[in-house]
Amino acid sequence: MSANNIEQTKYGLSLKTKLPYEEAVERIRAALKEQGFGVLTEIDVKKTLKEKIDVDFRRYVILGACNPPLAHKALEAELQLGLILPCNLIVYEEGEGSVVAAFDPIAGMGMIGNPALDALAPEARSRIEKALTRVAEA
Amino acid sequence: MSANNIEQTKYGLSLKTKLPYEEAVERIRAALKEQGFGVLTEIDVKKTLKEKIDVDFRRYVILGACNPPLAHKALEAELQLGLILPCNLIVYEEGEGSVVAAFDPIAGMGMIGNPALDALAPEARSRIEKALTRVAEA
Repeated sequence: MSANNIEQTKYGLSLKTKLPYEEAVERIRAALKEQGFGVLTEIDVKKTLKEKIDVDFRRYVILGACNPPLAHKALEAELQLGLILPCNLIVYEEGEGSVVAAFDPIAGMGMIGNPALDALAPEARSRIEKALTRVAEA
Repeated sequence: MSANNIEQTKYGLSLKTKLPYEEAVERIRAALKEQGFGVLTEIDVKKTLKEKIDVDFRRYVILGACNPPLAHKALEAELQLGLILPCNLIVYEEGEGSVVAAFDPIAGMGMIGNPALDALAPEARSRIEKALTRVAEA
């Protein structure tokens, strides 16, 4: 765990925060925007599971974030990269606060094994880490 | 490559078909539905890249597919699995026909390394492979 409490997991970067769920969602959205990521998709997991199979789940959202210039370069280098795009971030309730986590583009690159992505994945990761750091500072 | 022309890649299952793009999209949607997957998200890559950064790209769609009972079990086993959900499928133009590909849940499981997913990833993969096979038969 680093000084800003962002934890590296096997396939992501994870931040536990005291922010309530709604505020964490709002802050990660704003921080992604600052880093040039638009949120292209959004899945309300709690609502979807309730509607589709009538089970109760904690509040949990999946945001699909995309930095268009980076995504374009990455798709030019690896046409099937759309299989792991956009870059997902999740926010869910945990105790009194929430967890904000992001898929780690470098983990994705490891799975793909295309050297043409060597420069792009670290840039994407760096921007996403900066967005999480902004939330950690809140 | 198997008898039905579905190719295993490092992180996906890929099918090259003579079907025109629009028909391939329609058929994979119907086949996913048969396998219990709803399409929760959809990104028109060509349109997004044109609108956001004014570049031209081939017709390309990313469909986020979710089988709610499987997703629920998987999230219970691995809370941060939302970082790689829903399961992406892509369709893009290629020559006179198109390519339909799916993220391989077993590749995802390999990255995550949680034995509690051992039974779920093969089931998800099997259903997705059946959906691709239906398109291959078209």
